[in-house]
Parts: sequence; C-alpha cells; structure tokens
Amino acid sequence: MNTLNVIKIGGNIIDSESRLAGFLAAFAGIAGPKILVHGGGKIATEIGGQLGIEPHYIGGRRITDAATLDLVTMVYGGLINKRLVARLQTAGCNAIGLSGCDGRVIMASKRPVRDIDYGFVGDLAEESINLGFLQTLLAAGLTLVFAPLTYDESKGGLLNTNADTIAQELAKAASKLRQVQLIYCFEKKGLLMHPDDDESVIPAVTEDEFLQFVARGIVREGMIPKLENAFKAIRHGVRKVIIGQAEDLSQLIAGTAGTHIQ
Amino acid sequence: MNTLNVIKIGGNIIDSESRLAGFLAAFAGIAGPKILVHGGGKIATEIGGQLGIEPHYIGGRRITDAATLDLVTMVYGGLINKRLVARLQTAGCNAIGLSGCDGRVIMASKRPVRDIDYGFVGDLAEESINLGFLQTLLAAGLTLVFAPLTYDESKGGLLNTNADTIAQELAKAASKLRQVQLIYCFEKKGLLMHPDDDESVIPAVTEDEFLQFVARGIVREGMIPKLENAFKAIRHGVRKVIIGQAEDLSQLIAGTAGTHIQ
Repeated sequence: MNTLNVIKIGGNIIDSESRLAGFLAAFAGIAGPKILVHGGGKIATEIGGQLGIEPHYIGGRRITDAATLDLVTMVYGGLINKRLVARLQTAGCNAIGLSGCDGRVIMASKRPVRDIDYGFVGDLAEESINLGFLQTLLAAGLTLVFAPLTYDESKGGLLNTNADTIAQELAKAASKLRQVQLIYCFEKKGLLMHPDDDESVIPAVTEDEFLQFVARGIVREGMIPKLENAFKAIRHGVRKVIIGQAEDLSQLIAGTAGTHIQ
Repeated sequence: MNTLNVIKIGGNIIDSESRLAGFLAAFAGIAGPKILVHGGGKIATEIGGQLGIEPHYIGGRRITDAATLDLVTMVYGGLINKRLVARLQTAGCNAIGLSGCDGRVIMASKRPVRDIDYGFVGDLAEESINLGFLQTLLAAGLTLVFAPLTYDESKGGLLNTNADTIAQELAKAASKLRQVQLIYCFEKKGLLMHPDDDESVIPAVTEDEFLQFVARGIVREGMIPKLENAFKAIRHGVRKVIIGQAEDLSQLIAGTAGTHIQ
C-alpha cells in the first residue's frame, strides 16, 4: 500500500503567493494518499485588526477569546482552507477541506486553566482522531486539507489548536491504517549543524544523536520540542519524520533534502 | 431505502438564535439521511461593513466583486458553516460542512456577462453535482451541510451561488440515488390562499392548480419562481417539494404543515 504523506505548512507559506504557488504545485504532484495541515498567517491578524479584534497575550502566549475564535473559524476554517482546496482542485488534486467538527474528525478538550486561561484552545488526548472517517475519505481517493481547528468533545463548539500538534496526531493515528511519513515544513532547510550556515543540513538523526546534539548545544530552543515531537511520533508508529523547507517538498519526499528522522 | 430530506434555510433563521436553536434540534431529530443548505445572513453584511466591503448593486442586483467573494468564503464557508456543523455534532448529528470545491461536489460556471457583470456568481448547469462523492458521504452516515458556494469548473476558484438553486440541484441529482424530499423553509407557513391570512395555507397544489392560482392572482411575485422551481424539481425526479416555516420542520416532514407539491 502506498505511503501516506502528512505535510504541515505554516503561515509563512500561506502569506507568500510565490512560495504558496510552488508548494501547491509540488504537493498536487505527490503520488499516493496525502494530507495537508495548514496554520494561519498574517491575513488573520490583518482581518482581526480591521474587525477591532486585538490580540491578547498573557505571559507571551496568545489567548483565544470568543471574538478570536470566531475570527480563526472564519479565516482558517473558511478563507484559507477553502482557497487552498479550490487551488488544489485546479491543480488536479481532488481535495476536501476539514475542520475538527466535520465528522468529529479531531476531538479535543479545552485546555484546563492553571496559571493561565488560554481561552478556546484545544488540547488533543490520545485517540483524538476519528480513524474510521479518515479511512472513508482516503479510500475515496480524497486529499484531506485540515484547518487548525478542533471540536470540543465535552462542551461542543470549536477550539483553536496548534497545527504542528494536529499534524502529529493525524500521522500517529493514520499509522494504524498504513505506512505514514510526517513532513514539517519550516523556515530552515533542516536541522543545521551550524545555525548560521543554511547549507549545513544534517541529513539524518537518531534519538541518541539528537540527545548528544542537545548536550553539545547544536540543537537549541524551538528545535528541541520539534525534534522531541518527531521522536514521539516515531515511537507511536510513524515510519519517518522529515523536517525542511516547503520549497524542497519533492526532494524532502524523495529523500534528497531535509533532515530525516526514523 | 429511507427518504433523503434536502432542507434549505435562509439568513432569517441563521440571524435568530432562538429560531436557529429550535430548528437545529428538530433537524438533528430527523430520521434517515439528510442534507442542509444554508444561506448567509446579516452577519456577512455586518462583518463586510466592518471590513469596509460595501455592497454593490447594479439594477437592484447584488454584485459579487473579489472582496465580497472573500467575505462570503469566510463567513458562509467558515463561520456559519462550521458553527452549524459543531452545533449539529453537539445535538448528536454527525455532520460535515462542505463548499462546492470540496470533492468538486458542486461545479458551476461564472455567470456570463450580458447587460450586467454579476462578478463571481456561479450558475449551475445540468450534471453539476458530483454524485459519487455525495453517495460516499451519505453511505458513511454523514449529514451534509452546504454553504452557498460553488467551484468554478473552467477557471478554478469559488463562486457565490443562490442557496435555493443549490438545494434544488442537490435534490434533483440525489433523486438518481434514492427517494428525495426537498423542503424550502421561508417566512410563511406555506402557499397562502389569502396573502394577509397566515393561517390560509394551501396544503397541496398540483401544477394545474398552480397555473390557475397565478391566473387568478393568488400566487404572485416571488412565489411564482419558487413554485416553478418546485415543479421543475418534481419533473426531474424529486418525490415531493414542501414549502413552509422552519419552526414547523417536524410537521412539514410529517405532512401536517406547509404546502406539499408532488
């Protein structure tokens, strides 16, 4: 059975028309089943500003109040998601756009209030993915395009959820059905041996090597949780995790670019 | 096989929280397969106003310019559609929200420019519905919730399309799969013998009777195309068309309210 590719892109790709066009052409060209998970982008902030919805932060973390939840439902679940689907259709890729409420495909719980009330933010438990629904759509030959919105299983309604987390949980769950590769597109060409040298990509890394890189200060800050999540996905059945640039999508899949973790 | 109910609601229901809550409870309680088609509502106009998107009219007809298309993609395809789906899930109804681009489910053509350029408005040809996709989702036990957006088959992109027309085309197409009832919810309890008497509902009408009612001036103005479309749907295989009030949904289906056309 063909490998399922689960690919996550962030706002940086959505915000750049030329980068997005190149990415979507490469994505549409991937053979076999595939899932795209997208983040937000500057357009949500711009539209929010025009609507008088000011971003709220507590301790540097963005809070999703009721107005912000409506904003992201409109912009992520509507504008960005349906535009991506329409463009993929035009590229010959039979896509369907989904938010977590559709077919209860991604169920979450509102993050419990401890020090901070994050508002309408969803955390995913184990078994948060409706696998039967996923399988029905994939078996129909559809490409799934996910907005970063989940369904609040206990209280109803939508929740704002990190797109990296959604991609990881989809990949883990789908591993029960078939072989899965999880591809995180970010700003760098991969894990870099020298942070200032974009060409110093480490082609592959094991968990032992990763721990040594952390001890030696080569892997730092935001990359540590990203890599930790990659190894967690591997331990939960994902065949391979690849991190790299959206521009290199075809080479990331072919194994000739990015950092490969397996 | 169970009858498929295709039900259309307009902005007047979406704008009223109490009417919407009652309608969704009744809708969730309908046994068997069902499709909901929703229109817009005041919220699109309100959000458009805040975003500085002023409605444009030519000869009294609303024009969908590029900014308005983005607005309706956000509000119809995102905010209203996903909120309805989440609320139906909470009511125990396994719904999925769709715009025409999803699975190329509703394909349209941009309305040709004759006297007026309506902008990004889609007209539906025969065979505009992707019946295989519809059948896959219905067979999976899903309730389909459609935003009034179609996919531009020749040029790509989304098009703004009348919700009544979408409901009619879905009902006609689905008649090839199973027995279909098409229910139009509007402001009146049905076709009225006396326009000022809301209780003078005509329980059933044949096409001959309809033509007599038109000749006698009983059926007038906006009701004429509505009824003409109902008879057209019947001629294309729809088993029954029912027109009435959203508040009476259960009785409309039970045959104890509204005007029944078959």
